[in-house]
Amino acid sequence: MTGILDGIDATYGRSVAFALQALIAILAIAVALDTLPNLPDWAKRTLVIEEAVIVTVFSVEYALRIWSAPRPLRYVFSFWGMVDLIAILPSLLMLGADFRALRSFRLLRLVRLFKLVRYNRAAEQLAGALYAIRAELTLFLFISIVTIYINSAGIYYLKHETQPEAFASIPHSFWWAVATLTTVGYGDVFPVTAGGRIFTFFVLVVELGIVAVPTGLIASKLSEREPSRDRE
Amino acid sequence: MTGILDGIDATYGRSVAFALQALIAILAIAVALDTLPNLPDWAKRTLVIEEAVIVTVFSVEYALRIWSAPRPLRYVFSFWGMVDLIAILPSLLMLGADFRALRSFRLLRLVRLFKLVRYNRAAEQLAGALYAIRAELTLFLFISIVTIYINSAGIYYLKHETQPEAFASIPHSFWWAVATLTTVGYGDVFPVTAGGRIFTFFVLVVELGIVAVPTGLIASKLSEREPSRDRE
Amino acid sequence: MTGILDGIDATYGRSVAFALQALIAILAIAVALDTLPNLPDWAKRTLVIEEAVIVTVFSVEYALRIWSAPRPLRYVFSFWGMVDLIAILPSLLMLGADFRALRSFRLLRLVRLFKLVRYNRAAEQLAGALYAIRAELTLFLFISIVTIYINSAGIYYLKHETQPEAFASIPHSFWWAVATLTTVGYGDVFPVTAGGRIFTFFVLVVELGIVAVPTGLIASKLSEREPSRDRE
Amino acid sequence: MTGILDGIDATYGRSVAFALQALIAILAIAVALDTLPNLPDWAKRTLVIEEAVIVTVFSVEYALRIWSAPRPLRYVFSFWGMVDLIAILPSLLMLGADFRALRSFRLLRLVRLFKLVRYNRAAEQLAGALYAIRAELTLFLFISIVTIYINSAGIYYLKHETQPEAFASIPHSFWWAVATLTTVGYGDVFPVTAGGRIFTFFVLVVELGIVAVPTGLIASKLSEREPSRDRE
Repeated sequence: MTGILDGIDATYGRSVAFALQALIAILAIAVALDTLPNLPDWAKRTLVIEEAVIVTVFSVEYALRIWSAPRPLRYVFSFWGMVDLIAILPSLLMLGADFRALRSFRLLRLVRLFKLVRYNRAAEQLAGALYAIRAELTLFLFISIVTIYINSAGIYYLKHETQPEAFASIPHSFWWAVATLTTVGYGDVFPVTAGGRIFTFFVLVVELGIVAVPTGLIASKLSEREPSRDRE
Repeated sequence: MTGILDGIDATYGRSVAFALQALIAILAIAVALDTLPNLPDWAKRTLVIEEAVIVTVFSVEYALRIWSAPRPLRYVFSFWGMVDLIAILPSLLMLGADFRALRSFRLLRLVRLFKLVRYNRAAEQLAGALYAIRAELTLFLFISIVTIYINSAGIYYLKHETQPEAFASIPHSFWWAVATLTTVGYGDVFPVTAGGRIFTFFVLVVELGIVAVPTGLIASKLSEREPSRDRE
Repeated sequence: MTGILDGIDATYGRSVAFALQALIAILAIAVALDTLPNLPDWAKRTLVIEEAVIVTVFSVEYALRIWSAPRPLRYVFSFWGMVDLIAILPSLLMLGADFRALRSFRLLRLVRLFKLVRYNRAAEQLAGALYAIRAELTLFLFISIVTIYINSAGIYYLKHETQPEAFASIPHSFWWAVATLTTVGYGDVFPVTAGGRIFTFFVLVVELGIVAVPTGLIASKLSEREPSRDRE
Repeated sequence: MTGILDGIDATYGRSVAFALQALIAILAIAVALDTLPNLPDWAKRTLVIEEAVIVTVFSVEYALRIWSAPRPLRYVFSFWGMVDLIAILPSLLMLGADFRALRSFRLLRLVRLFKLVRYNRAAEQLAGALYAIRAELTLFLFISIVTIYINSAGIYYLKHETQPEAFASIPHSFWWAVATLTTVGYGDVFPVTAGGRIFTFFVLVVELGIVAVPTGLIASKLSEREPSRDRE
């Protein structure tokens, strides 16, 4: 039974699992549409019915998984068991009622999206590569934060007198440093004096190096793992 | 005959194929110029004549290809045969007339642009590398969409009360998430409160990792294929 | 003793070093909060006390390191000894007093942040890879500056007559060239004529190549070093 | 003599070559400062004197190189000979006079900047790697232009009715496509309707792939060449 639900059963193949994954995708689209303002009444009604149907299907799936598991409790407290429960719980509690305050809990249903990449070989390989470089990625994350912090402090001391609004404090400057180091550049905050711009120049040169590190790490790790995959 | 048109004939070499490719490039520039507002009359007339000439040449090429193909029907229903037909059909139908509503179909002529990379060894190698990592690229596309979706939902619940216009719904927030994750940062939508900015920070850290994955995949696959190319 | 402070002691393990590192992180957050405008009085008082405590701890650490070093003077004039001294000196001088003009020197305490990555193997490996490609990175930095310079000069001669404010001189145009080449694109300065935009197009094509170089260098160097790490 | 000027002489080492390179850097800074508006008179005078000195030095260098070359004419018509001549010619013609119209020719002096990377081993290696992948880079450039063209045409037909100013024609839309595909995102032009934004989303997904290609190519080529360098 679990084999059928997971799409690794010999007879039913991936059809049941595929239908469940399609339901998750429909759910995600419905949750998004549900937030649209000025939604006509018929659309709201359709979304309520759609939610009832999907929650019923997922509840049945959950029950079947408990019933068919060799050790039901183990499944209930496993990672995927928690995901399945969390995904149906908020809807079960709210179905029929319309507690505005609780609506955001509905988003928890989206934790199911994680299930879409289960049993995917490319995903496993990518996760493996990321796991192998977890120390480097943690270090990279740390260096990024320190760099952003130093840049925030630097621009604050350089600019908080000429642009007191944009760079009011180090935490305020943090926003500028993040938008600049990731090259997003929204354009809401930027230095306007020569000093601030020269400082930005050095920040951006450092940034090119920092952005290059995770790419290099992932590229080197993936190319190392390639041969082992081809052997499979 | 097909050899001459494809630029692999022993006598005529690449000259005929090169002339046809130059015509495609001229066509692309003409299509672009044709959309310029306030075009003087003489320019419009030149473009009509230019279109007549190019369509004639391509029609002749199409006829020659059918005539010279060992199995004409096979060519007509092949990928490149369809491309050749689609590229001349809209112009043939509209030549002389000026059905405004049908003009956008003229863009179909641009499908010919694909022919420019035919028989190019570097293109074949790149296409081969991309084909080899199609599973990873699909997964990457899927993860990108899920990430953008989760970010849209997150920013919507965080911010739709303080910035109801920019983050009116999850689909509206999608636009912000796309512009941020790809680091385009047009600057038309961005969070203005501390909470939204901290959320953006985490979104951008994830983004650096996501953008690094396709680069790493392509780099590792290309470096693997290098030796086989050098042997050629 | 030094072993305990550095977190490589057999008995105390990393606990003392970890506590010191946590203090550095707290210090960084406190320095940032300290710059927030309209800070309530109780928060200011807390920050003063927090500073006194941290400076005391770091002073004790400094004294212990001198006392326990086999050759104290060597430690005092070593890189990390200077870092430790610079980190406590400004606070020691200012503690209790409130010389507004000297406050920015407090930032010097943040040089301690560098100590956070000491004795980290991933950091050592990354530093090793960066050291191995120092010639290439220097060259890359140099090429970047020359490219930005040439782009600044080019846009200045193209545009300083149509947009005299944005491109008033080559140093003014430098800002535009930096924001464009790093793809930050704040949106405060950009060309508005066809000529300037076509020039920008070529600038951006060059930029894609330039940004790719450090990534490629780091990736190739890291993948080369991988085997030696696995052997450890 | 040529050995002394090129910094490969046994006695004088790199000192003469280094002095000449420093002069080139000073020249670049002076050219930039020269364009600053509202420059005081003493600064203008200094720049004129500075120009006279540098042109004299470079003229002497040019004369010495011709005099010391085993086959003077060969040097005059060589690539670096032309660079040396072009770099002094405009200043020689204009020295003393102040032909405003001819001033932009002074920029030609900057062609000397290319000499800064001569005899640099890292530069040679990078140039070698780029030369080895010239076919791929040309293809990449071509695919980029075609992609930008198709995107321009697509956004034009989607949006020129709702945003007639921003997307007035395909050439006008080209600017948007360039700023978006390279993720610069100045924020002066962007789609405001749902259709245009969904189109932009697909454009950006393609872009992530396109940007990854040159990085992957350079990384794979550099990692291939590493061993041969270590052998040197």
